Amino acid sequence: GQPLLLIAGPCVMEDEAHGLRHARRVKELAAKHGLPVVFKASFDKANRSSGKSYRGPGLEAGLAAFQAVKRETGLPCLTDVHETWQAEPAGRVVDVLQVPAFLCRQTDLVIACARHGRAVNVKKGQFLAPREMRHAVAKCREGGNENVFLTERGATFGYGNLVVDMRGLVQMRELGVPVCMDATHSVQMPGSGGDTTAGDRQFVAPLARAAAAVGIDALFMEIHEDPAVAKSDGPNSLDFPTADRVLREVLAVRHALGQP
Amino acid sequence: GQPLLLIAGPCVMEDEAHGLRHARRVKELAAKHGLPVVFKASFDKANRSSGKSYRGPGLEAGLAAFQAVKRETGLPCLTDVHETWQAEPAGRVVDVLQVPAFLCRQTDLVIACARHGRAVNVKKGQFLAPREMRHAVAKCREGGNENVFLTERGATFGYGNLVVDMRGLVQMRELGVPVCMDATHSVQMPGSGGDTTAGDRQFVAPLARAAAAVGIDALFMEIHEDPAVAKSDGPNSLDFPTADRVLREVLAVRHALGQP
Amino acid sequence: GQPLLLIAGPCVMEDEAHGLRHARRVKELAAKHGLPVVFKASFDKANRSSGKSYRGPGLEAGLAAFQAVKRETGLPCLTDVHETWQAEPAGRVVDVLQVPAFLCRQTDLVIACARHGRAVNVKKGQFLAPREMRHAVAKCREGGNENVFLTERGATFGYGNLVVDMRGLVQMRELGVPVCMDATHSVQMPGSGGDTTAGDRQFVAPLARAAAAVGIDALFMEIHEDPAVAKSDGPNSLDFPTADRVLREVLAVRHALGQP
Amino acid sequence: GQPLLLIAGPCVMEDEAHGLRHARRVKELAAKHGLPVVFKASFDKANRSSGKSYRGPGLEAGLAAFQAVKRETGLPCLTDVHETWQAEPAGRVVDVLQVPAFLCRQTDLVIACARHGRAVNVKKGQFLAPREMRHAVAKCREGGNENVFLTERGATFGYGNLVVDMRGLVQMRELGVPVCMDATHSVQMPGSGGDTTAGDRQFVAPLARAAAAVGIDALFMEIHEDPAVAKSDGPNSLDFPTADRVLREVLAVRHALGQP
Repeated sequence: GQPLLLIAGPCVMEDEAHGLRHARRVKELAAKHGLPVVFKASFDKANRSSGKSYRGPGLEAGLAAFQAVKRETGLPCLTDVHETWQAEPAGRVVDVLQVPAFLCRQTDLVIACARHGRAVNVKKGQFLAPREMRHAVAKCREGGNENVFLTERGATFGYGNLVVDMRGLVQMRELGVPVCMDATHSVQMPGSGGDTTAGDRQFVAPLARAAAAVGIDALFMEIHEDPAVAKSDGPNSLDFPTADRVLREVLAVRHALGQP
Repeated sequence: GQPLLLIAGPCVMEDEAHGLRHARRVKELAAKHGLPVVFKASFDKANRSSGKSYRGPGLEAGLAAFQAVKRETGLPCLTDVHETWQAEPAGRVVDVLQVPAFLCRQTDLVIACARHGRAVNVKKGQFLAPREMRHAVAKCREGGNENVFLTERGATFGYGNLVVDMRGLVQMRELGVPVCMDATHSVQMPGSGGDTTAGDRQFVAPLARAAAAVGIDALFMEIHEDPAVAKSDGPNSLDFPTADRVLREVLAVRHALGQP
Repeated sequence: GQPLLLIAGPCVMEDEAHGLRHARRVKELAAKHGLPVVFKASFDKANRSSGKSYRGPGLEAGLAAFQAVKRETGLPCLTDVHETWQAEPAGRVVDVLQVPAFLCRQTDLVIACARHGRAVNVKKGQFLAPREMRHAVAKCREGGNENVFLTERGATFGYGNLVVDMRGLVQMRELGVPVCMDATHSVQMPGSGGDTTAGDRQFVAPLARAAAAVGIDALFMEIHEDPAVAKSDGPNSLDFPTADRVLREVLAVRHALGQP
Repeated sequence: GQPLLLIAGPCVMEDEAHGLRHARRVKELAAKHGLPVVFKASFDKANRSSGKSYRGPGLEAGLAAFQAVKRETGLPCLTDVHETWQAEPAGRVVDVLQVPAFLCRQTDLVIACARHGRAVNVKKGQFLAPREMRHAVAKCREGGNENVFLTERGATFGYGNLVVDMRGLVQMRELGVPVCMDATHSVQMPGSGGDTTAGDRQFVAPLARAAAAVGIDALFMEIHEDPAVAKSDGPNSLDFPTADRVLREVLAVRHALGQP
C-alpha cells in the first residue's frame, strides 16, 4: 500500500503571507508524521451562501501566492476552479485541479481540469450516489488524464445537514481510483448558520478515524492558524494542534490495519 | 392574481427546424389555454450524466435557432447558461436566463445572469432547503435585477431519487418572488437509469396538479413531439397531448381556488 | 367516484365530555360540507416523545367515551391500538382500528386489527417506501379483512423533519386500496421541539389541497377546539374555523377535477 | 476503558439444537478474542416485511431454547420483545431485553423492558435523530433500570436504503450510556429485495471498523453457520469465519486507539 496523502491548508488563501505561513506549518505537520502532502487553498470562494461573504484574492493574486508557496516550501499545491477558463492558468501553477462538489456533473469543467491539471480531484456531489462518480472518472479519462481521484464530503440528508455514508468510500474505490476523505467539509451544516454555513468541528476527528478504518488513500482537512477568525469555513476548520491529533489517530488506525 | 405563466419546450434544441416546430406547437398549446408562455430549450446540456451523451448545438447555433424562433413565432424565450461568459451573448437573444439547479450557489453565474438577463430563473438546488434560496434572490438583486423567480425541481432523497417538498413552494413565495414548478425534472430518478437519468413520467400530472393546488406562478414542462426519440430527458418529457391534459387539469385546480 | 371521507377529531380523547364536544362539532363540520365522517381520537398516546407527556384516559375510559360519542352523535369512530390485545375490545366499540405508522410492520398487530376491526387504517411508516405498504395490505387480507385503507403521514427526511412524497398517494392507490391523507401529522417536525414534537400548522392547508389534487379517498385532520391548550399535538392541530376553510378548499379542488 | 462487548448470534432461534450449535460457536469466537459476550437470538420475527415469512419458534419454545443455551454454555442471552406482556417471561430467562428499532418510541414497551430486564438495549429508530434517544433512556430510568444501552442500526435514507451516521455514535454516548454498533442490520436495504429485506454483507466489515474507530462499547453482529440458508436476514448475516475476521480488525482498531 501507499502512505496516506495529506491534503491540507486554509479554506481560502487570504493573501500571500497568509498562504506562506500556512504552507510552512502544513509542511511541518506532514513531516512530523512522515506523510506526503499537498497544500490546499482556494483563490475564490465562488459558491458562498451569501453574495456578501469574503471570496478570496481572485485568480491572478491567488496563483501568484501559490507560486510563492511552491518556491518557498517546495510543496505541491491544489486549488479548485469553477469555470473552464480557469483550468489552464491554474493548471500551469498548481499540481492538482479540484472540481467542487456542486460542479462534479459539469462535463466541460471536468474535462478542462483533466486537460490542464497534472492530477484532478473531483469531489462527490452531495446529491449523487457514490457509484455515479464513475461518470466523472470517465470524463477525466476522456480528457486524457488518468491521474484522477475522488473525494467524499458528505451527502445531502434532509435540510441543513450532511451525512457521510462510509459505504461510499468502498464503492468509489471499486471504481479503480484513489479515494480521499474530506473530514472538515463533511461536518458542515449548510444553511443552518443563517447567512453562512455552520459546521460542527467536534465530528472531524471521529469521521476521519472512521474513514481511515474503512480505507482511504488521502485525507483532506482545512486547517487554519486561528479558525475563530478564518474568513471562510471557520466553524468546520481545525487549528494545527487539533489537526496534529487527528493525524496521529488516523495513522494509528491505518497502521493497525497494516497500511502505511 | 396573475394568470399562470407556461414555460415549455424540448429539453434540448436539437436544431433550428426542431426548435421552430416545437415553438409553434408550444405557442398553439398556450393559446388554446389562454396562457402567457415562454419557449424553453437548452443549447448545451453541460451536465449530462455521461460525457458521451448528446449535448446540443452549442451556444452559437443555439442562439441562432432562438433568433429564428423569436422571429417566426414572437415567443419570449428562456435558456440556461453554465458559465458566466455565456450570460451576455445569451442575454442578448433570449428573455429569461436560467441558472441550473446544480449551479444555484455559483455567485458569479447568478450575478452575470442578473446583469444580462431581462429576467432570471434560478432553479432550487436539489441539495438546498427552500428558504436558502433567499441568497440566490439577494445575489440577483445585487446584480441589479429584480425580475427574478425561483423554480422547484425536487430535492435529493437518498440515492437515485428526488422528492418534491410542497412546503417549499410556500416558503419560496414567502421570499417575495414568483415561484415556478418544474413538473418534468421533478420526476427524474438521477442515476437510476445506468448511463442516463431515468424518470417516471406518470407522476408529472399529479405533481403539477399538486403544485397548482399549493400555489404557483409558473409551470415548467419539457415537451417533446416524440419523447421516445428525444435526445435528452426523454423518460421525463411529455408529448403534446399529455401536456395539454396536464394544463387542463392544472387550470381547473387554479380556477377552483380563485386564481386565473 | 365516492365522496371524500372525512376522518377528524382531537389527537387524544381528553375525557368523555371533551370527546362529545368535539364529536358534535366534527359532525356539524362534515354535515356543512355534505361529507361522510368518522370521528377520530386516541385513548392512549403510547409513543409520545417523552415518558412524562400526557397519554390519555386509557383503554377502558377511552372506549366508554367512544360509546357515549356513538350513542349521542351516531358517528362511526376510529381509534389507534398499540398492542394486539387492544384490538378485540377496541374493535367491539369503534368502527375503524388504526395501526400507527411506527407499528405498520408489526405483523400480529396488523392481523389483530384485521380480525377485530370492521375496517383497518394502516398508516404508512415514515421509514417505508409507499409501495412497501403492499405487505400491510396483504397481512390485513390474511387476517380476513378486505376493508383496509392506507394513510400517508410523511416520510423521514433527514433529522427532525418529514416530507410528503405526493407520488406515494398514487403508488398506494395502485395497490388497490383507498388512500387517506393525514394532513396534520404530515407537518410534524419530530424532535425539533425539545421534549415534544413540533409542527408547522401553516402547511396543513397547502398539503391537504395538494393531496386532493393528486387524488385521495379520505382526509384525516386533527382538530381541537383550542389547539393552544391541546394536551397532545397542539402545534400541528387545527381549530374548527381553519378546518372548515381547509375542507372548503379541498372540496373545491376535488370538484374541479370531477370528483364528488 | 472496558473491553468491547460482543453481542452475536443468529437472527432467529430456528430451534433448540440450532440455538445451541450457534451459541457454542459464538462462545468459542468470543473466547478466541478474549471478549465478554452475549448470545443473541429472536424467538419471533414479529415485523417481517411479508406475513408469509418464517417467524421463529415463538415465546415459549424460544425461551426454553434460551434456557438450554444458558445451561449448556453459561452465556448471558439477549432477545427482543414486541409487546409489553412478553417482557416479564422473557426477562426471567434472558439477561438483556431488546427494544426493536421500530418500537423505540413505545413508552410501555420500553418501561416494561426496564422493569423486567437485567439490562435493556434500545435500538435507535431508523426515523430518529440520535439525540432523540435521550427520551428512551429517560423512560428506562423511569422504569427503574439504569442498565440501559443504545444501538445504532442505520437511519432512513430515501427509500430502500439505510445510512449509518457515525456522528450518532458520539451523540448517543454523550447521553451517558454505552453505545452498541449493529453492524449487520445497518447494511440492510429494506424493501429492495421484493418480499424480503435485502442487504449487502460486504459493508459489514468496513462499518464495524469505522464504528470502532469512532468509539463504541459493544458490537452486535448476526452470525449464521450458513447464511445462504438462514431463515431470516441471510443477506446481511455473516458466517463464522467472516465474523472472526471482522472482530480481528475491529480489535486492531480499538487497540490502536488505546482501548481494550
